[in-house]
Amino acid sequence: MSRIAAIIGGGVIGGGWAARFLLNGWNVIVCDPDPEAERKISEVLGNARRSLPALSDHRVMQEGSLTFTTAIATAVKDADWIQESVPERLEIKHNVIAEIQSHCKPQALLGSSTSGFKPSELQQGAANAAQIFVAHPFNPVYLLPLIELVGHPDTTAKAKTTLQHIGMAPLIVRKEIDAHIADRFLEAVWREGLWLIKDGIATTEEIDDSIRYGFGLRWAQMGLFETYRIAGGEAGMKHFIAQFGPCLSWPWTKLMDVPELTDELVDKIASQSDEQSGQHTIRELERIRDDNLVAMMRALKSRDWGAGAIINADDNARRPPLPQDITQPLNTIHRVIPIDWTDYNGHMNESRYGQVFSDAGDVVMAMVGADTDYIREGLSYFTVDNHITYRNETHAADEIYVRTQVLQAQGKKLRLYHEMFRANDELLATCNQLLIHVSLETRRSCEPGAAITDKLNELHSAQSQLPQPDTLPDAEWHVANS
Amino acid sequence: MSRIAAIIGGGVIGGGWAARFLLNGWNVIVCDPDPEAERKISEVLGNARRSLPALSDHRVMQEGSLTFTTAIATAVKDADWIQESVPERLEIKHNVIAEIQSHCKPQALLGSSTSGFKPSELQQGAANAAQIFVAHPFNPVYLLPLIELVGHPDTTAKAKTTLQHIGMAPLIVRKEIDAHIADRFLEAVWREGLWLIKDGIATTEEIDDSIRYGFGLRWAQMGLFETYRIAGGEAGMKHFIAQFGPCLSWPWTKLMDVPELTDELVDKIASQSDEQSGQHTIRELERIRDDNLVAMMRALKSRDWGAGAIINADDNARRPPLPQDITQPLNTIHRVIPIDWTDYNGHMNESRYGQVFSDAGDVVMAMVGADTDYIREGLSYFTVDNHITYRNETHAADEIYVRTQVLQAQGKKLRLYHEMFRANDELLATCNQLLIHVSLETRRSCEPGAAITDKLNELHSAQSQLPQPDTLPDAEWHVANS
Repeated sequence: MSRIAAIIGGGVIGGGWAARFLLNGWNVIVCDPDPEAERKISEVLGNARRSLPALSDHRVMQEGSLTFTTAIATAVKDADWIQESVPERLEIKHNVIAEIQSHCKPQALLGSSTSGFKPSELQQGAANAAQIFVAHPFNPVYLLPLIELVGHPDTTAKAKTTLQHIGMAPLIVRKEIDAHIADRFLEAVWREGLWLIKDGIATTEEIDDSIRYGFGLRWAQMGLFETYRIAGGEAGMKHFIAQFGPCLSWPWTKLMDVPELTDELVDKIASQSDEQSGQHTIRELERIRDDNLVAMMRALKSRDWGAGAIINADDNARRPPLPQDITQPLNTIHRVIPIDWTDYNGHMNESRYGQVFSDAGDVVMAMVGADTDYIREGLSYFTVDNHITYRNETHAADEIYVRTQVLQAQGKKLRLYHEMFRANDELLATCNQLLIHVSLETRRSCEPGAAITDKLNELHSAQSQLPQPDTLPDAEWHVANS
Repeated sequence: MSRIAAIIGGGVIGGGWAARFLLNGWNVIVCDPDPEAERKISEVLGNARRSLPALSDHRVMQEGSLTFTTAIATAVKDADWIQESVPERLEIKHNVIAEIQSHCKPQALLGSSTSGFKPSELQQGAANAAQIFVAHPFNPVYLLPLIELVGHPDTTAKAKTTLQHIGMAPLIVRKEIDAHIADRFLEAVWREGLWLIKDGIATTEEIDDSIRYGFGLRWAQMGLFETYRIAGGEAGMKHFIAQFGPCLSWPWTKLMDVPELTDELVDKIASQSDEQSGQHTIRELERIRDDNLVAMMRALKSRDWGAGAIINADDNARRPPLPQDITQPLNTIHRVIPIDWTDYNGHMNESRYGQVFSDAGDVVMAMVGADTDYIREGLSYFTVDNHITYRNETHAADEIYVRTQVLQAQGKKLRLYHEMFRANDELLATCNQLLIHVSLETRRSCEPGAAITDKLNELHSAQSQLPQPDTLPDAEWHVANS
């Protein structure tokens, strides 16, 4: 049976909660007096629908139902989870919580999205105080897994189980404290950032760059302490603290009131760090970190954003020249196999051979002028048929190259034959690729422009004396990757 | 002509610099009195060689030469770039800098990796003060692009150009300040983190999780201010500050000494933010952010780490059952196309069709028991031949499914035929896939175990009455993606 979530307050955060529950199959009732609530929620939901399902490799989300009401009583009556995301004023929260508790099931979970209030503050004067807890999410709620849970241990334990079922990573905060945990860090950085701007040291953009080109990438995968554990090297966390501890008394931030680094505190940190990361050596952690960084930076490269845009700029500045000698198979690709193209065992995934051959085809496209400008004119080549044979295994960090032969260039049809080699000239794979020229407007095949046809004919005739590849034998295969 | 970098001090940071220059074709001389320096540098270099070249899609690094010396004079004599990474004590730095300047070329660039000292401090008593500047990198230096440059504008401008040529993102700091920019944020978070541990609010692991499952992912791509610009919504940065400004006087961190939010400061921030991000609407920024997050989180999923491990846990908990009805083509895949499988124009890249078919083959492997345990025993199936035809275009967020037929199961040979459909039953692509059973020890083909053979025979005979796919026609192609 479907479960019901009541979302009280339909702003960006409430909308994010609604999307997270809805796309995970819950029925959702949104309660907001704002006549614009439905539009606002539908905008957040649009963002969530295009991003959240893509995280999974085998889930197709079955959405629950979505309804709207302006009455809290209607919203919470049958709800299993009630999430309060109303404005951050304590008297508003108290009124809303009282109204919720006079209509909801006693066993319903009642979370508050508050950034600043502690559960004890929210619970003041409440009929059923233990029901009320902080469930503090991070924007965009439909994507980021972190939820801070603060409240009665029995309640937060139940809440944790429910939230794990909708893909979240609940963090139960041990003791209540203003702003919980993560927002305390955000607030510290925000305060320091305001000083830097006020004092003319940096602009908002420079501050953002100082984060996203550096430690932001580290923190997306390891956080603060595991990163510093690596910095401490084999000498460990105590060594790191001994080295950087004295900075606490230096003016490295305008924010002071620092704790004293007693032996007790140092021991506490070092043993917690052992508990957290001690199963990996520092060398292992370095490689895990580097593989994570390469994979994330290449992900950003595919979006041409942040650190990925820096790599693209560098790649473009060093783009190799197009192949010059057209009487031989064309030197289309020369590269190293990146870690994110490999399976967990380090073999290049079979689909990435296709990526290499697709890139090789793109080089031929660039040579004949079927480039970005040509595509902008509404014409392009589409691959319609690829026949790949796998001859040998390939691994991360292998240097490879591709030789490409133009087998056929006739009207709409272009047939290429690619051979991929390791740097030591060992044949790794072949691909017989058929491309068809299409109109991007009609999405149907059509003849290419005269300039392209001329260049293709020139290429094809320059290569016509080369030996043609054999029809591929069906037996005696060399082994390749699965 | 190759350029020469002298690396003075061969620790983790010096080693990272050496690797960054060396892999970008510079000749590198490392100067360190430590007899272990060569071993330490070679370890950092090992990490760099397996990660840095993989960032590029068409570069194959041509390494320069690497030599070692214990004499500063020898190291710096012909150097174009000199990087000082000796211990953080001012008198040591002064002595090393004096020795460098008495032997180096006057036009050489002389950067210091110092975290804490300002250029004016490093320059005290120097022969050629303008030559000395701060070039503060972030670990791992061979991967992270950020470099903070502080010093004379002419010098830092030259340094910036050089560093951009080795793939870095130099940030020129407008005025010198203790700890430059990024380390001030790190120091603030470190101080707050120490309080949380001391007060028993959170452990090192909980603090790291509060970062890497939440704002760490945001900061890896947008930083602080662009993220908050989105949070401010269409009402903009001023609205955001009006909403969260009052927190400055609240105990949201133990770190106080906060700047006053005057109208002047608010205007400064808002106009800098417009300058930085004003070319995108908030809705555009939301989608850019979400696409970046999905791509990075999926990158971490492939490494089974951090937020990616959370997604894998969720995916595994909801793994669909293996196909039950074996008398029909098997329901092997049902999923949504993720954004990171598409080209910049939103089409699924041709190689990712291969990914889908590879995953479909894996489901058949799981059905017959050729699973992880079987691989651990040293046996597996490798794909040796894939024939893919592209029938229709596919886009991000499309829901697709695959039907798989067992065409042949005979000895070492297994031939599968996959058809990929959009949710509306439109045929998108087909794949004729030949797999060969191999010994992972000899890397040669061999007969599968009896249990696998039995299951494959059962599958094959249950499907033997199904119509066989046609030999693929070579004309009248529907269009597909290039």
